[in-house]
Amino acid sequence: MIIEGFSSAAVPAGIRYKDRLDVGLIFCESPVDAAGVFTNNLVKAAPVLMDMERLQKGRVQAILVNSGIANACTGAAGLRAAKATAALAAAALGIREDLVLTASTGVIGEPLDVGRFEKVMARLSEGLAPGNIEEVAQAMMTTDTVSKFVGRTVDVGGRRVKIMGIAKGAGMIMPDMATMLCFVLTDAAISSAALKTILKNGVDKSFNRITVDGDGSTNDTVLLLANGRAGNEPIVDDDSPGRSVFQDAVDELLKDLALQIVADGEGATKLISIRVAGARDERQATMAARTIANSCLVKTAFFGEDANWGRIIAALGRSGAVFDPERVDIAFDEVMMVRDGLGLGPAAEARAAAVLKGRSFAVNVDLKAGNGSSTMYTSDLSIDYVKINADYRS
Amino acid sequence: MIIEGFSSAAVPAGIRYKDRLDVGLIFCESPVDAAGVFTNNLVKAAPVLMDMERLQKGRVQAILVNSGIANACTGAAGLRAAKATAALAAAALGIREDLVLTASTGVIGEPLDVGRFEKVMARLSEGLAPGNIEEVAQAMMTTDTVSKFVGRTVDVGGRRVKIMGIAKGAGMIMPDMATMLCFVLTDAAISSAALKTILKNGVDKSFNRITVDGDGSTNDTVLLLANGRAGNEPIVDDDSPGRSVFQDAVDELLKDLALQIVADGEGATKLISIRVAGARDERQATMAARTIANSCLVKTAFFGEDANWGRIIAALGRSGAVFDPERVDIAFDEVMMVRDGLGLGPAAEARAAAVLKGRSFAVNVDLKAGNGSSTMYTSDLSIDYVKINADYRS
Repeated sequence: MIIEGFSSAAVPAGIRYKDRLDVGLIFCESPVDAAGVFTNNLVKAAPVLMDMERLQKGRVQAILVNSGIANACTGAAGLRAAKATAALAAAALGIREDLVLTASTGVIGEPLDVGRFEKVMARLSEGLAPGNIEEVAQAMMTTDTVSKFVGRTVDVGGRRVKIMGIAKGAGMIMPDMATMLCFVLTDAAISSAALKTILKNGVDKSFNRITVDGDGSTNDTVLLLANGRAGNEPIVDDDSPGRSVFQDAVDELLKDLALQIVADGEGATKLISIRVAGARDERQATMAARTIANSCLVKTAFFGEDANWGRIIAALGRSGAVFDPERVDIAFDEVMMVRDGLGLGPAAEARAAAVLKGRSFAVNVDLKAGNGSSTMYTSDLSIDYVKINADYRS
Repeated sequence: MIIEGFSSAAVPAGIRYKDRLDVGLIFCESPVDAAGVFTNNLVKAAPVLMDMERLQKGRVQAILVNSGIANACTGAAGLRAAKATAALAAAALGIREDLVLTASTGVIGEPLDVGRFEKVMARLSEGLAPGNIEEVAQAMMTTDTVSKFVGRTVDVGGRRVKIMGIAKGAGMIMPDMATMLCFVLTDAAISSAALKTILKNGVDKSFNRITVDGDGSTNDTVLLLANGRAGNEPIVDDDSPGRSVFQDAVDELLKDLALQIVADGEGATKLISIRVAGARDERQATMAARTIANSCLVKTAFFGEDANWGRIIAALGRSGAVFDPERVDIAFDEVMMVRDGLGLGPAAEARAAAVLKGRSFAVNVDLKAGNGSSTMYTSDLSIDYVKINADYRS
């Protein structure tokens, strides 16, 4: 997808591995409105700290991203390195330095070598072209096995508006951390304040609902940039024309990217929706769904295609949600497996086992304790997850 | 170890597998003082519910335990089954039914077949003998690879007092759940009220400090039985002679069993102590230690013998503990790896890597934010953990 006014490029810079795209650049012809959501981890990587400060003005003209090194836990030197790489990009692009954001992903605690950026910056900026955003998605992959891209076109106040997003995920993926890197570009006209609200709403319903391993990263960053080229009447508040259509489109796009991240979770062979209904309230439903979604025992059972509902009910019991264990229903997709806290026996189990053989399925829990409901998305815990993470740095 | 007045036996009953010890019995010649600590999981197994009620009087004469089937999520029928097996034991032993406790471990959600107990009860009660408590430890193993036994002798108010304990662990092991089965027998004279306090203190410092997989079970039970044969002046309150010596001995014994459980955690190849010091208070220290101890990324790095401190600092950052990331120190045993939030480079890393090759080591974290400290014990997350749990029921 091409959105006028945005161009991008990626090159191999040898940040950690040779001959692999690992530095990407997104450029806006002129400064655009922007909003960001960042990790809640107390330990924030240098680029996160820098971006949070620069984004206060709500204007951005370029994003420089690298994989291989996270530039986290690198102290004052790390912050200087982040600023130096941004300065290199600004010089190459002939724009103001404080309009450049950076994002890094990879190993924590190792220094980012600015020299490697210096060597490739000319080639990177010369390579800028509309339509190759997917190369940037490739350049920010770490343990991802596929790059993640989504594009949408919606009608906002009578104008066709394009939105496209890229993301990377795989490990250190946990809800409530806006975990991973995700960049969304649109030609909608929209104020940075409105963008901020829309982005936060969207993240709550997407990235804050996924988990791969329950670990939150130091680098998580979601950026939303809007250049206004679509010519719609600018969205500035809740009453602006097309506000809700645009929100829906962003929600849908972020959810699509979030699910791509879970499906490509480290070692994942399954994408599972954990839907809890009948909780006392939404908060308790989320607690219950999240506890199931993060349970190592539940996730290994999914890997084994074992409809082991006992592990699910044990996770529910320690989640903090209040319910009567003798009223709980559990189904795998449409196959009822537990009714009023009791298993429905071998026939139900055989049908449930067939559901679990699929690449994607839902666990539907009804606690019958109220009207709260919530959904979390998770992957299974496989032998490959352990293999990938036992030798990540080697 | 033999403690006069206690005898035990175990037999294969075919509860789930053939020709494997799976039912055990502990018998006290006369009713003894007793205390118990049970799972905090909202979903409690039938034997837990029954024991909690029966223990209100603080007197016990027998414990019947089985592996294979957890008798959890089995509803009213499960409670009837637990009571029926207790009644069988009571009849065989010629004692009051409400003085029999039961404990079950194994698969959740499947019915406990009382008939299997009926068939073996005569042989079980005839086999009772002092000194074979370790057979009971064997009978309650599930995915454990070794049985867990500890014995101690201490001087309490001028009398030699014996204490011995058995435990089973392996999976669904998480702190704050008194997780697993553990039975401790002593010939000390001590009131059930004092036993309760002593047991709770001991569990807080042992089983509530360990984690294998962060999953709490529906069946966790710790029982402490005291028959008074040692003839010491009975311990009834904090001022009784030998009270603190006895508490120390129980603490040490429970910690020993807890560490045996972690060392034999499902698929575990390492036993790791996570020591957090310098937190604002003990609660924050525990939060920090627990978050590290449960992190899949940290635990897979340990399996890979990778001194990946970035994952440790990322876990600290999401733990909820308040600290300055630029002041954190991290050492593996005595090898300093991170000072003031920064890695100490390849030489330190090489020495840390040597520490991680050991079967057992400590991660020492100093947050430099206060005087709170806490230790958690955890295992690594290995390929075998996934294998064991992906086909547990098959």
